[in-house]
Amino acid sequence: MIDNALIEAENTAALPALRADYDSLGERLDRRGIDIAAIKAQVAAFGVAVPSWGVGTGGTRFARFPGTGEPRHIFDKLDDCGVIQQLTRATPTVSLHIPWDKAAPADLLGKAGDLGLRFDAMNSNTFQDQPGQAHSYKFGSLSHTDAATRQQAVEHNLECIAIGEALGSKALTIWIGDGSNFPGQTHFTRQLDRYLDAVKQVYAGLPADWRLFTEHKMYEPAFYSTVVQDWGSNYLIAQELGPQALCLVDLGHHAPNVNIEMIVARLIRFGKLGGFHFNDSKYGDDDLDTGSIDPYRLFLVFNELVDAEGTPGFTPAHMLDQSHNVTDPIESLMVSAMEVQRAYANALLVDRATLSAAQDANDALSATTTLKTAFRTDVEPILAMARIEGGGAADPVATYRRSGYRARVAGIRPAVSGAGGGIV
Amino acid sequence: MIDNALIEAENTAALPALRADYDSLGERLDRRGIDIAAIKAQVAAFGVAVPSWGVGTGGTRFARFPGTGEPRHIFDKLDDCGVIQQLTRATPTVSLHIPWDKAAPADLLGKAGDLGLRFDAMNSNTFQDQPGQAHSYKFGSLSHTDAATRQQAVEHNLECIAIGEALGSKALTIWIGDGSNFPGQTHFTRQLDRYLDAVKQVYAGLPADWRLFTEHKMYEPAFYSTVVQDWGSNYLIAQELGPQALCLVDLGHHAPNVNIEMIVARLIRFGKLGGFHFNDSKYGDDDLDTGSIDPYRLFLVFNELVDAEGTPGFTPAHMLDQSHNVTDPIESLMVSAMEVQRAYANALLVDRATLSAAQDANDALSATTTLKTAFRTDVEPILAMARIEGGGAADPVATYRRSGYRARVAGIRPAVSGAGGGIV
Amino acid sequence: MIDNALIEAENTAALPALRADYDSLGERLDRRGIDIAAIKAQVAAFGVAVPSWGVGTGGTRFARFPGTGEPRHIFDKLDDCGVIQQLTRATPTVSLHIPWDKAAPADLLGKAGDLGLRFDAMNSNTFQDQPGQAHSYKFGSLSHTDAATRQQAVEHNLECIAIGEALGSKALTIWIGDGSNFPGQTHFTRQLDRYLDAVKQVYAGLPADWRLFTEHKMYEPAFYSTVVQDWGSNYLIAQELGPQALCLVDLGHHAPNVNIEMIVARLIRFGKLGGFHFNDSKYGDDDLDTGSIDPYRLFLVFNELVDAEGTPGFTPAHMLDQSHNVTDPIESLMVSAMEVQRAYANALLVDRATLSAAQDANDALSATTTLKTAFRTDVEPILAMARIEGGGAADPVATYRRSGYRARVAGIRPAVSGAGGGIV
Amino acid sequence: MIDNALIEAENTAALPALRADYDSLGERLDRRGIDIAAIKAQVAAFGVAVPSWGVGTGGTRFARFPGTGEPRHIFDKLDDCGVIQQLTRATPTVSLHIPWDKAAPADLLGKAGDLGLRFDAMNSNTFQDQPGQAHSYKFGSLSHTDAATRQQAVEHNLECIAIGEALGSKALTIWIGDGSNFPGQTHFTRQLDRYLDAVKQVYAGLPADWRLFTEHKMYEPAFYSTVVQDWGSNYLIAQELGPQALCLVDLGHHAPNVNIEMIVARLIRFGKLGGFHFNDSKYGDDDLDTGSIDPYRLFLVFNELVDAEGTPGFTPAHMLDQSHNVTDPIESLMVSAMEVQRAYANALLVDRATLSAAQDANDALSATTTLKTAFRTDVEPILAMARIEGGGAADPVATYRRSGYRARVAGIRPAVSGAGGGIV
Repeated sequence: MIDNALIEAENTAALPALRADYDSLGERLDRRGIDIAAIKAQVAAFGVAVPSWGVGTGGTRFARFPGTGEPRHIFDKLDDCGVIQQLTRATPTVSLHIPWDKAAPADLLGKAGDLGLRFDAMNSNTFQDQPGQAHSYKFGSLSHTDAATRQQAVEHNLECIAIGEALGSKALTIWIGDGSNFPGQTHFTRQLDRYLDAVKQVYAGLPADWRLFTEHKMYEPAFYSTVVQDWGSNYLIAQELGPQALCLVDLGHHAPNVNIEMIVARLIRFGKLGGFHFNDSKYGDDDLDTGSIDPYRLFLVFNELVDAEGTPGFTPAHMLDQSHNVTDPIESLMVSAMEVQRAYANALLVDRATLSAAQDANDALSATTTLKTAFRTDVEPILAMARIEGGGAADPVATYRRSGYRARVAGIRPAVSGAGGGIV
Repeated sequence: MIDNALIEAENTAALPALRADYDSLGERLDRRGIDIAAIKAQVAAFGVAVPSWGVGTGGTRFARFPGTGEPRHIFDKLDDCGVIQQLTRATPTVSLHIPWDKAAPADLLGKAGDLGLRFDAMNSNTFQDQPGQAHSYKFGSLSHTDAATRQQAVEHNLECIAIGEALGSKALTIWIGDGSNFPGQTHFTRQLDRYLDAVKQVYAGLPADWRLFTEHKMYEPAFYSTVVQDWGSNYLIAQELGPQALCLVDLGHHAPNVNIEMIVARLIRFGKLGGFHFNDSKYGDDDLDTGSIDPYRLFLVFNELVDAEGTPGFTPAHMLDQSHNVTDPIESLMVSAMEVQRAYANALLVDRATLSAAQDANDALSATTTLKTAFRTDVEPILAMARIEGGGAADPVATYRRSGYRARVAGIRPAVSGAGGGIV
Repeated sequence: MIDNALIEAENTAALPALRADYDSLGERLDRRGIDIAAIKAQVAAFGVAVPSWGVGTGGTRFARFPGTGEPRHIFDKLDDCGVIQQLTRATPTVSLHIPWDKAAPADLLGKAGDLGLRFDAMNSNTFQDQPGQAHSYKFGSLSHTDAATRQQAVEHNLECIAIGEALGSKALTIWIGDGSNFPGQTHFTRQLDRYLDAVKQVYAGLPADWRLFTEHKMYEPAFYSTVVQDWGSNYLIAQELGPQALCLVDLGHHAPNVNIEMIVARLIRFGKLGGFHFNDSKYGDDDLDTGSIDPYRLFLVFNELVDAEGTPGFTPAHMLDQSHNVTDPIESLMVSAMEVQRAYANALLVDRATLSAAQDANDALSATTTLKTAFRTDVEPILAMARIEGGGAADPVATYRRSGYRARVAGIRPAVSGAGGGIV
Repeated sequence: MIDNALIEAENTAALPALRADYDSLGERLDRRGIDIAAIKAQVAAFGVAVPSWGVGTGGTRFARFPGTGEPRHIFDKLDDCGVIQQLTRATPTVSLHIPWDKAAPADLLGKAGDLGLRFDAMNSNTFQDQPGQAHSYKFGSLSHTDAATRQQAVEHNLECIAIGEALGSKALTIWIGDGSNFPGQTHFTRQLDRYLDAVKQVYAGLPADWRLFTEHKMYEPAFYSTVVQDWGSNYLIAQELGPQALCLVDLGHHAPNVNIEMIVARLIRFGKLGGFHFNDSKYGDDDLDTGSIDPYRLFLVFNELVDAEGTPGFTPAHMLDQSHNVTDPIESLMVSAMEVQRAYANALLVDRATLSAAQDANDALSATTTLKTAFRTDVEPILAMARIEGGGAADPVATYRRSGYRARVAGIRPAVSGAGGGIV
């Protein structure tokens, strides 16, 4: 954790300018009929989950270049997540990955409690082989041709649920890499049917108050076909499973040029939007920092979410899912959590009456200008004020750098040598 | 029509070499356990519909460069379609487009009967404004914000059904350009709901033995969003409508890199594959000649269709839908129809027992080699023999060129000046 | 033109709030070490050319839906351009298209002078056939296999230069649709060599103080290959031609996912960036309004331009090139011109010392945050103040709508019926 | 190595049918004016290099699933390469990767000599950190901001040349992953200039009879920008370097939809095509088996190469570069080498006189049909006969499987546990 005295000192120094900016923004919003305090309250209540694996440095098939102070285990990871939440007040929950984060539940609950964190959706892993595992996932997991391999994957998911129950989680996210690398390698329909059969067994083990999130992805690690390749397949799977099954949208998992915000709207319309894995991408599943490449697209997604607020039963989950290859993961996650908040805040500013009227009148120019007006309003003063009032930092990255946290943990956590095993 | 004596003379000259090639191919297939005569019979029974609009020279928003002898009306178009069927014996039906092809049904039936043609799916047009039309489709048709405009579009579709009934058609294809060009221009969900409401009225007017094909397309003419943007939306629409509603797959209507053959498999799996608009594309909905850019992809689509043959109720419709900007449309349509037949013939050669065994054993290399072996077998002798035996030409393009048909109709049909109105 | 009294009245009403916003923004920028008045001056001096064809409603190969008051000829078009400049003060020049805009130079100069407009780059048209033309461009123009056709295209370009000289233009833009629709249709190298040979003849006719802009485009209207398909070919062509030849970048002419701002940087580095055709795109050459789909990308392009300011001889041309299918073209062009100004203004706010330091230190997070800070600053008060001080409108769209200009010209200019000739 | 008696026995069994197929193909080609023996001779003389790293099982950032008998070091790898060459007679050379393949040159030469192999282009590695290395490549190598890091990368490349000289190699291939993951992270031009400065030092160390191949790639491992991102940048780099510098084209390194065969033609036209890394891709740099996804595209590339044969100084290098994640690498490399040969053989069959005539006459249909006729000729009998006559196997995969080679080496080479370190 960061010394609260440092946070307070930094905030005190920042407050005069921030107060001025907040007030002048308040006046401008007031002219547009918007109460800045109400926006701030909504922002303050908004949280996004941090993935435990995100606090370690990521990599590619070519190499991984670790930073200093890499977390050694889930408790180090929780420490890092605690810092992110402490400074941003935007990430009250952590999403665990099994088996990477396996530990005694009581210890996990104790540690999280100390840090003011709770546990979000559980993530299973059937895209890697684990030591001592009976069956390999080389040719698939829940959709494997071999029944025993599928059963192993089912049981792993059921174990994730069991762990999650002990931790207070209420959801399981299933992403599989199953697919094929060659035309003909797999029979599309039989593979899907095997998947459906297996995932139904997982669904059957779901507690009544849990949700099951299935995640689609166009490609990677399979490079010709993937079982849950797009939202269409994802929807049909969720429909086959039942009401607790919902679709997870990862922003980087789509074909080039696809209109993602429209997919979000379709899933909302048909009652199957479960939540998000936020990140950004330029070329594929790049797992870049949220909002770093196309912030307007992120805003347009939130425009759909705000539009749907109030729909009965509509409570999508928000999670980050990024790979931090060249930055300090803590910094990237803080900035990304704030970018999610920012998109939400900007979307809250959309004048929906004007938008609706323009849509009804086919006044495309007014409609799109209405969105742009909301998007280009700089809501940073709202976010910063919400953070300060919640006990966080006016400028989380600056305070974090000032704190020396990274150097401190680097003194405790041993250096990791550069990995990268020639997986080219 | 082409003089049958010419066809016969050309065929007689071609037959010796063809016979030798057919026999040697027969021996090779026999070694693989395949009866060439059975394949030939299946090819001979296979037909693909020609779109009436396809026999005119196409164009782009920049320009259209008509050829000589452009058809003046549906009767000229039917003449051209008659030649295509006469020479290829692969295109027994014509797909009409209303209002472009409006004429007295008796005259249409008479003309078609003379040419040995029947009528395939009807196509409605609500992507253009017609003279005397009460409401403009500038901002949409079946999904327009204005109820009267939607009603006009519904009635046009019902009229298409009525015309089709008089002509012996059994299906209506609906493709709409409705969508938006700007973020915010339209409310995704309300637009879809308006579309669903309208298309349900069309569906209600469908005769009991008809099918309704809805067609998805990623973009164009709308460039930000399209109502039926992908197979996911298309499936959900067909599901909402009922059992007579099925999805049409146009090969050029998908996002870059998308695995189309997998979409085909998914629609088959969920009972909603209606049929195809065949063409090829490199960049978007280029409407290039079928198989001209990626013939292996076309084969992989047919691999799914052959695999699904025998599934109860599985009778997908096959139609060409291309734009011929730089070729003689008759030539392009003949070659394209034969490419469709070729892909079908190659897919029939797949050793499905070997393929299944390789799939079950996760022997990716054998599985994909099994497909490749079928694909690279040159089935031209089978296609040519089936054509000759059916009364067509050994080499339709050569015979067509020899016949002087284009010059003959150019003497009757007046020259058309180059269009292209600065729609840039 | 719009009644200046109306503009003044609207501005007077808007000024109090604008003044407050401008002042508070000034304070915030001052804290960042930026002089708001200097930014305003740079914005005021910045102009972007309007394409004469842009003031008419555009369309697609499927249809064109004209609006009311469509301009009948270049003089109507100039009237519309005059309004755009009057209200935005951002578009002092017009780019003509020959032969669409052919008229007596004296008349054009007189009209433009009355409206306070000048003439920007000339645009030739060899992608359409014109009445009375000897040779068709169906199979190409400057790269045609036929020497006489190439010669015709060369002469047309030389005529464009001659017209431009009479009008005070200093540049010729050449965009050709030449390419192919089928593998094998054209020999890539021989086609390029024919193009080079022809364009060298045009280059030879260039006045000493003119520039020749060649424009690359990935595809459309040719759908398999295009002669000048990307910046690589474009660069090599410009290099072959000589120092007056430079590359034009149209933002919509690239492959999916391509990093356009990097191409801009490369062309600057090698001394061959000529200028821009601004627009936006989601799928292809959609010709959507500038900044409407991905405003951050537009900003990143301007980030490169501002970075290169001061490079000797670096004076890129700025032109809009859009197709307005569903909006009032005057409105779209006004908004787009302001979006270009906005991207420029935001790019001027980038703290380049901080950026450079972060780049040198490989501090990716700080570097990208520096760009984001500039981007999310709402510079609208600067743009509006610059407009007002220049004699334009605080809110050009609102004032334009209030003025009744469109209804007024619709009373003079006859209604145009919906075109769309079945070019599918 | 495989027991030659087995090869001979298998060949003897295959020969009767093969002889019949070869003869009937010979007759068909003879009718087209093609001498099958001449084609066979050209095929027999054609070779493609195997990458040493290709014989190990590949992986993704998510996981790697090793097979049995994974090679432990370069000598095991050479054994595997020897088998590939023994059976296919299509891969007489091996491309080494430094430092992965470092060993005493005399030992390498001895081993290669025993196996009948030679050494092709050397590959340097500056995309990973190596134990004991002074400077990290986390933020780049030849383009790093730090001069000492660039120097280290230069020296590594010079060392690769030195090793290559000892081994009889005549080329160095440089691929770097340098780029950025965030807008602003790097200054495009300064980064390129640093790269140019460094690579010029490598070029200066090139022996007079060597070539330097630089390789472009759109993205990965950098996900926002890459220094050598496309053929345009690659060409300009090669031009800056000098006549020994040439561009390497990897088929999977381009933007979606890009016309790769046209890029090949452009590089030939401007004298800078150095060679190829063959593989196939559906989504990105998937490194799938050559010809497995789009065999017609591979043919179109070879159509350009055959067209350019005879151009003075035109001797492009051919190398495979694939990642075998789900197949036995030896099998994939054998099939891929034969696919390259197949594309070459098919391209040799193109009737270039007919093609040229059709191109000159703008007869697009005939031109493209001419290519298709060549492509769909099944040349397998030519390839198989060339293999047998060269001492290889009629059916390399079948003979390899029969030989038990994999099981044999698995008894010697220890099992490798599944890697995959959570690099997500």
